[in-house]
Amino acid sequence: MTANSPSAAPVTLLGLGAMGTALARTWLAAGHPLTVWNRSAARTEPLVAEGAKAAATAAQAVAAGDLVIVCLLDDASVEEALKDTDLTGKDLVNLTTTTPAQARGRAAWATARGARYLDGGIMAVPPMIGVPEAGGYVFYSGAPDLFETHEKTLAVPAGTRFVGADPGHAALHDVALLSAMYGMFAGTAHAFALIREESIDPIAFAPLLAEWITAMADPHIAQTADQLTTGDYTTNVVSNLGMQTAGTPTFLATAAEQGVSPELLNPYFALMRRRLAEGSPSEDLTGVVDLLRR
Amino acid sequence: MTANSPSAAPVTLLGLGAMGTALARTWLAAGHPLTVWNRSAARTEPLVAEGAKAAATAAQAVAAGDLVIVCLLDDASVEEALKDTDLTGKDLVNLTTTTPAQARGRAAWATARGARYLDGGIMAVPPMIGVPEAGGYVFYSGAPDLFETHEKTLAVPAGTRFVGADPGHAALHDVALLSAMYGMFAGTAHAFALIREESIDPIAFAPLLAEWITAMADPHIAQTADQLTTGDYTTNVVSNLGMQTAGTPTFLATAAEQGVSPELLNPYFALMRRRLAEGSPSEDLTGVVDLLRR
Repeated sequence: MTANSPSAAPVTLLGLGAMGTALARTWLAAGHPLTVWNRSAARTEPLVAEGAKAAATAAQAVAAGDLVIVCLLDDASVEEALKDTDLTGKDLVNLTTTTPAQARGRAAWATARGARYLDGGIMAVPPMIGVPEAGGYVFYSGAPDLFETHEKTLAVPAGTRFVGADPGHAALHDVALLSAMYGMFAGTAHAFALIREESIDPIAFAPLLAEWITAMADPHIAQTADQLTTGDYTTNVVSNLGMQTAGTPTFLATAAEQGVSPELLNPYFALMRRRLAEGSPSEDLTGVVDLLRR
Repeated sequence: MTANSPSAAPVTLLGLGAMGTALARTWLAAGHPLTVWNRSAARTEPLVAEGAKAAATAAQAVAAGDLVIVCLLDDASVEEALKDTDLTGKDLVNLTTTTPAQARGRAAWATARGARYLDGGIMAVPPMIGVPEAGGYVFYSGAPDLFETHEKTLAVPAGTRFVGADPGHAALHDVALLSAMYGMFAGTAHAFALIREESIDPIAFAPLLAEWITAMADPHIAQTADQLTTGDYTTNVVSNLGMQTAGTPTFLATAAEQGVSPELLNPYFALMRRRLAEGSPSEDLTGVVDLLRR
């Protein structure tokens, strides 16, 4: 351990769920003096055996160091854990999963208590923490100077991506990417349901499906971003809204033939039809994004 | 042109929409003698200028060669185009987009008329035809001997993937992959809607979104296939149904904060909750596939 070297700065960590515990181990392994606190103290024991100090209260844990990282159940748990601590002069990094508005509220709350605040959105599950090749990372937003000061320490458990000074933007990036992922999950669940009772091996089918999704994701997402930026949804369209909407009855008829509920396809197809009814058939699918906004 | 060489076998093509025209040009470019027919004859003219022969009727086009490829609007158009033709001894390759049941019906119809039948599902848009690096390909299913005989000719416009003797399976693969793609489109539309009114550049956001979808697709799809095969949905689960369902309120609350309709997320989250209510919280998400089957 090199407790006083800048490369192994002391870390205080509040919250030892599966994620907090995974984070803790990476800082210990990298030689950072680590003070931990958890509402249920039993969780601290294995980490103490590995070199961490356990604080009896959250206030003592916060007092133990300048960099205070919290990874708790939800925003209410963060307030509950920190309410009797002295945050003056502390650098508070909140890795708890929250909404953007909660992150902004917590930033204001922490700033009013004399802390610098950085919010994080973890794009990984615990087994990916401390495993750089697994590709997990953390979105950060909030105080840029706090991020710069501690970037090296924050990079120990997973990659870091700073997405701006708005403390809500890390959570927003996190939720946006995960929401999109559930859309992809929905689509692939429908695809597997279609072949479920056929003499098609799901294991042979899987790479075809994965390859197609992967091949389509990049150009579709880039095109949507370009069109949202320019506001012109009719440039570089290869298969337009009119043609694509005309194709949807085949997808729905196939679902019916295969005994599969169309409930995961219907809402997007309904938005395509609505946009087609309102706008130009020569548009791309980008107009659906506008229809989602209330 | 090497009209009689086995590498440039004569091709008859019925249907000169955008896709048919793109296909035609690749066979002409590769030196295949090509006979074309289209309901509206004007479409044949540019191809005749490039070396194709135009047939006055579908019957004459079919009579001109042994390999007859159709790429029409829908299954009804195929019957309409072929009903007065002599299919005896012909190799009929149907690239028209249909449902699996329509493909099976058309296979039986063609076989009863003395033809061998192969069905195709095109995984490409016209600009990808004849551009191998674009990655487009065609699923084929039906008569294996027909596929073997003509594989080289069929590979001229795009890659080929034979998925078995069931003439419905090419269409089923096609529809399954495209259905899954629309799920991914739905998820990414929701993600863009979330950031739409924020000071987040869609063009900077796009690669983060594409990278996440791509990174998640492979392991999720492979895991689903494995679990559907074994019937065990609780092995190798990193984030289980209970934990993931507990996370969904944050996604819905964020959508509400950002003024975005949750209509594209709701159906999948509803199935997660239903499966959780019925089954084990320690399962993966694979049980959703079962809930889709009626």
